[in-house]
Amino acid sequence: MGRTHSNGYKRVSDFFPTLTHRPILKAVCARTPDRAKGFAEQWGYESFETDWKVLIERDDIDAVDICTPNASHAEIAIAAAAKGKMILCEKPLSKTLQEGQAMTDAVKKAGVKNTVWYNYRRIPAVTLAKQIIDSGKLGKIFHYRANFLQDWTISPELPQGGDGLWRLDVDAAGSGVTGDLLAHCIDTAMWLNGGIKNVSAMTETFIKERVHQASGKVQKVGIDDACLFHCRFENGSLGLFESTRYARGHKALYTFEINGEHVSIRWDLHNMNRLEYFDHGDDSIVRGWRSILVTDGDQPYMDKWWVPGLSIGYEHSFVHQVADFLKCLETGDPCAPTFADALETQKVCEAVLESAASLSWKDTGVKMP
Amino acid sequence: MGRTHSNGYKRVSDFFPTLTHRPILKAVCARTPDRAKGFAEQWGYESFETDWKVLIERDDIDAVDICTPNASHAEIAIAAAAKGKMILCEKPLSKTLQEGQAMTDAVKKAGVKNTVWYNYRRIPAVTLAKQIIDSGKLGKIFHYRANFLQDWTISPELPQGGDGLWRLDVDAAGSGVTGDLLAHCIDTAMWLNGGIKNVSAMTETFIKERVHQASGKVQKVGIDDACLFHCRFENGSLGLFESTRYARGHKALYTFEINGEHVSIRWDLHNMNRLEYFDHGDDSIVRGWRSILVTDGDQPYMDKWWVPGLSIGYEHSFVHQVADFLKCLETGDPCAPTFADALETQKVCEAVLESAASLSWKDTGVKMP
Amino acid sequence: MGRTHSNGYKRVSDFFPTLTHRPILKAVCARTPDRAKGFAEQWGYESFETDWKVLIERDDIDAVDICTPNASHAEIAIAAAAKGKMILCEKPLSKTLQEGQAMTDAVKKAGVKNTVWYNYRRIPAVTLAKQIIDSGKLGKIFHYRANFLQDWTISPELPQGGDGLWRLDVDAAGSGVTGDLLAHCIDTAMWLNGGIKNVSAMTETFIKERVHQASGKVQKVGIDDACLFHCRFENGSLGLFESTRYARGHKALYTFEINGEHVSIRWDLHNMNRLEYFDHGDDSIVRGWRSILVTDGDQPYMDKWWVPGLSIGYEHSFVHQVADFLKCLETGDPCAPTFADALETQKVCEAVLESAASLSWKDTGVKMP
Amino acid sequence: MGRTHSNGYKRVSDFFPTLTHRPILKAVCARTPDRAKGFAEQWGYESFETDWKVLIERDDIDAVDICTPNASHAEIAIAAAAKGKMILCEKPLSKTLQEGQAMTDAVKKAGVKNTVWYNYRRIPAVTLAKQIIDSGKLGKIFHYRANFLQDWTISPELPQGGDGLWRLDVDAAGSGVTGDLLAHCIDTAMWLNGGIKNVSAMTETFIKERVHQASGKVQKVGIDDACLFHCRFENGSLGLFESTRYARGHKALYTFEINGEHVSIRWDLHNMNRLEYFDHGDDSIVRGWRSILVTDGDQPYMDKWWVPGLSIGYEHSFVHQVADFLKCLETGDPCAPTFADALETQKVCEAVLESAASLSWKDTGVKMP
Repeated sequence: MGRTHSNGYKRVSDFFPTLTHRPILKAVCARTPDRAKGFAEQWGYESFETDWKVLIERDDIDAVDICTPNASHAEIAIAAAAKGKMILCEKPLSKTLQEGQAMTDAVKKAGVKNTVWYNYRRIPAVTLAKQIIDSGKLGKIFHYRANFLQDWTISPELPQGGDGLWRLDVDAAGSGVTGDLLAHCIDTAMWLNGGIKNVSAMTETFIKERVHQASGKVQKVGIDDACLFHCRFENGSLGLFESTRYARGHKALYTFEINGEHVSIRWDLHNMNRLEYFDHGDDSIVRGWRSILVTDGDQPYMDKWWVPGLSIGYEHSFVHQVADFLKCLETGDPCAPTFADALETQKVCEAVLESAASLSWKDTGVKMP
Repeated sequence: MGRTHSNGYKRVSDFFPTLTHRPILKAVCARTPDRAKGFAEQWGYESFETDWKVLIERDDIDAVDICTPNASHAEIAIAAAAKGKMILCEKPLSKTLQEGQAMTDAVKKAGVKNTVWYNYRRIPAVTLAKQIIDSGKLGKIFHYRANFLQDWTISPELPQGGDGLWRLDVDAAGSGVTGDLLAHCIDTAMWLNGGIKNVSAMTETFIKERVHQASGKVQKVGIDDACLFHCRFENGSLGLFESTRYARGHKALYTFEINGEHVSIRWDLHNMNRLEYFDHGDDSIVRGWRSILVTDGDQPYMDKWWVPGLSIGYEHSFVHQVADFLKCLETGDPCAPTFADALETQKVCEAVLESAASLSWKDTGVKMP
Repeated sequence: MGRTHSNGYKRVSDFFPTLTHRPILKAVCARTPDRAKGFAEQWGYESFETDWKVLIERDDIDAVDICTPNASHAEIAIAAAAKGKMILCEKPLSKTLQEGQAMTDAVKKAGVKNTVWYNYRRIPAVTLAKQIIDSGKLGKIFHYRANFLQDWTISPELPQGGDGLWRLDVDAAGSGVTGDLLAHCIDTAMWLNGGIKNVSAMTETFIKERVHQASGKVQKVGIDDACLFHCRFENGSLGLFESTRYARGHKALYTFEINGEHVSIRWDLHNMNRLEYFDHGDDSIVRGWRSILVTDGDQPYMDKWWVPGLSIGYEHSFVHQVADFLKCLETGDPCAPTFADALETQKVCEAVLESAASLSWKDTGVKMP
Repeated sequence: MGRTHSNGYKRVSDFFPTLTHRPILKAVCARTPDRAKGFAEQWGYESFETDWKVLIERDDIDAVDICTPNASHAEIAIAAAAKGKMILCEKPLSKTLQEGQAMTDAVKKAGVKNTVWYNYRRIPAVTLAKQIIDSGKLGKIFHYRANFLQDWTISPELPQGGDGLWRLDVDAAGSGVTGDLLAHCIDTAMWLNGGIKNVSAMTETFIKERVHQASGKVQKVGIDDACLFHCRFENGSLGLFESTRYARGHKALYTFEINGEHVSIRWDLHNMNRLEYFDHGDDSIVRGWRSILVTDGDQPYMDKWWVPGLSIGYEHSFVHQVADFLKCLETGDPCAPTFADALETQKVCEAVLESAASLSWKDTGVKMP
């Protein structure tokens, strides 16, 4: 994720020239000097560090971007907040709900600007969905469904842990698809459709043992390979969620759909520049799902890019998040999703895993602002 | 459904000319003489009856086709079986599992040929999916998901019960979308992917009260407007199911997808002549979901219709079921799904409703042959 | 085509019960008694003939349906008209423009009801396109484009002529894809968008020689394997047309699109129950192509079939044409496309072939009513 | 285009770190100091100029990128070549064929590296199409078709000429859609399918007069609003091309399709990360068009970007072209399309316009290497 974030910082001023703040790439931190130096040179960081504790001591650093595995989010964030640094933290917020709570308390106490990289909110088609939903056009909401389907861990030969594969190691990741994929779905869902009250979930670990890259030994796999749940939202609508890394044929198929009394909307990441839209108010004989190509200047963020019809890609969502973060520095507003927002997502993740473990419904305890 | 079945009987001999048996439309039965006579004349039935008990006494009747609301399936089927009639019964098999068991016992005892109109099995693309799955190409199965989305009952002005609307009356239908829509999904799922072991479900009735057409009074709505569940199949795969009549923009969107280790398949009723197919064994740079237009002569049933590229429609699935039923008369084989097969689907429906009512997981008790 | 027409006659009364006229299958005619008898028995014709000249003498025959290869349309139609028979003629109207003119003169002189089976007009989505265009919603028209792509003659092993393959024999067919496929595109185009004034075309015969089934010898192929042209319509719009049997991957992909100032519409036969529709008048941020599933009761012909969301197929267009023909018997109106209408299509086909042969633009001489 | 090119130079080193050459943004040139300065500051150019003649005199400039309207390409390119500068020129190469020939001669004589920004070649899905075609998998080619549809000039209120609208001014642009849109289609077509031998074209100017921004007066419109042609390729296949700015509902719908004996391929810019692929060699019952999501590391350029399933956008094609240009500096190879390559496209454009003007077929004189 270091590349997508760095790209966001480097491109934002070219495309959002009216912002008063411009990011400066002061330093990159990695555990080995080779890596840190290499990355700094390639991406144009002014310096590098190999110890994050040194980094957060530096006076020339205003903001810290945490791209480490989930297990170290809390320690770094809490320490950085104590040093008065602004924090941009990779999702999910934390390995456990308890850690997430501590992080949220820490940034609140320190009074530092904070945000979590749930970047899919800033894909223009998704932001447009939010605008339409907030306009009230949908009427009463009946259903929300989302899934995130991948297929990259089907081979039992794939090791767990270590280089590039920490997401399969429960110690580093905390959970499997729940924190990695479902967390995105939940963040978007509660942003669009309000709080999730309670859940009934199931998880599965299809491959029970894998070689661990650190030890070189076959070890029990602790993560969830698949997780699915249904739920009730506070607005009375029903939710259905699924995430897996075992859906052959799907690389990163994040889709959501919301069905309202008057209007329905759906989106998928494989066609990320489009929003599907159905309006029951259209004349009945020409009523149908509209495929909206979200590339026009009056659609979210798109006045910054190219002429209508020309696509943007995945990494633009990070550029947008940087732009919005910089804008919040100007205005003083919080930059959603903040740690507090992301903590609510964490509550749902925790309830989902508890529900799956106990084979019972769980209340999430979510409290939307 | 009387029209689709009648059409099936009338067309089968034109398109399946080598069958040794040909249906003869001896009599139609409806409660009022006007209707019965009108239907008989329009469709070319030789005679009509207004009492099914009279109908099943007639010696010139070999087979009885039950198209009544679910509540009367059991009584008619059990009586007809006792008279030695073959029975073709609309789905779902019965209003309750108990009735379904009695019906299944009755046809077994009477030794009469029986089938249930889960017609979607006979859409060529779905039959093709079955052939591919049975070939073993998919490898280990990880996921099965299906939904059936409609939007025709969103208006609170719609009455329940009576003419054309008995599906909203719990006394006539037994359940709402569970028996009407989910039952199709479950039948296909277990046919393709084996037995469902246990389920966790939720239901919702969005519109709590509606005028009843019979009484003219506002009455509590007893059916489920939406039902969703997840489950585990006997083969270890996870299932996810949803059905609703409140998904604005969807008319009859029945979709299913199955993800195997090597191959995935998906289908939807709105594009019923196509099957989507992904084969991980394809060369990696040209690997992608294939959109198979199932209209060629070497694909199921399609040698009977038109030249490649030309579509068939919804009602052809009924013609195919009639053809297969007639073929079973020749061969002596059972015509799946039999009452016994449909009873297993009934068990899942019952477990789903019980799970939703009790907010807990339920075993289905399904025993696949 | 005998099967699709027969099916049309047999089904129409079931689904259009209010029509005052009902077709009766009096006789089928084929060159050999075996075939004629077999077809009559399978489809329920009361009798059969082996000489069409005998058939048209019969007093019990009111209407003659011509399904023979193009080369014999004129002789049969002119003779049948002289006997006062109504005529339903397969498309294209004739092998040559001259024959078509003679046929048109003959039915006019005889005063007999006549129609040509350009069945695609009666696919509900296409009829809906016609209604929308006639409403004036599109504004000034700029573009019309259509193609008809197949791939069934790519193999050089395929013989020409004889059983099932007369379409490859120029003596029987008159032309290749121009009369077979482009004629459909032209008929729809002029129905939707008015007369075609002039054309510039090119044709190609990719496989120059094929065994002829009649002679058993390798003979020169006389038909066009592919034909493409651009043109100007009387309303000033530009047209672009293509047809081929060498487009690998396409079975019967007939598509058209019309672009107006305000609204555009497109359709394709492989998704025949859908119409794509773009309305520039929609709110700009939610503007997009609508995918209209044409299965609702307020859309053309669909009140006769199933509930919304359930598809019909290719052959239904023939049922609709029979229904409209019968309706015209009630009202006395001509049943479009009449011979006179189809003659205009023939003029375009002739101009296209002449243009291709002479490498120059040609006026069509089309005179729309 | 200044933004897309600048973005290309700025990003290339981040994503193609192994290249030995890195672009440095020495100077930007625009006619007014305000603009030049503003652009330089926003994009990080070290300096700016207001006279290109001064710019090409500077010793610190190795390469000149020409993003001006077509009418000035020749003068600048010829002068820059004389100064020994490398040249990257926006497409189309030139306003007239004669100018294009002079430019090509100039770079040849000067021996300077040169390329033309036909960027769509470098969209990964398009590059993949090239690889597949070059592998010979398609067999004999029968058809190639392409179109480029836009709808942004339908309003008669839109002025011609001047700021942002020079593309509507024939003096600045040379032609309308032919040079702007068709040129892209022709470049790709000849790259993929070889030379175009001869053409028959038609053009139309739907809006005959528009206010000119420079004069403020209503003036005759000199450009072509739409242009369509068919043609024959040197390999015997038939081509069909269309471009327009009057296709309501299409923003930048560039599509192409190629039909070979064994394999067909199609692509469209609105779904630019996908390639559609049909292989007749697939098992017949599971044969269908594959939708290839071109985001995997073994597909062209995609090892440089994100994990599988995550899209890139329009501007990435420019980054790729910069990367390939830099690579050619290392290897000494020409960077296609060179001026010489683009000149062949120019010949087809000229033949197309002459054919449309004279209503006759024209030879192109194309000589592919």
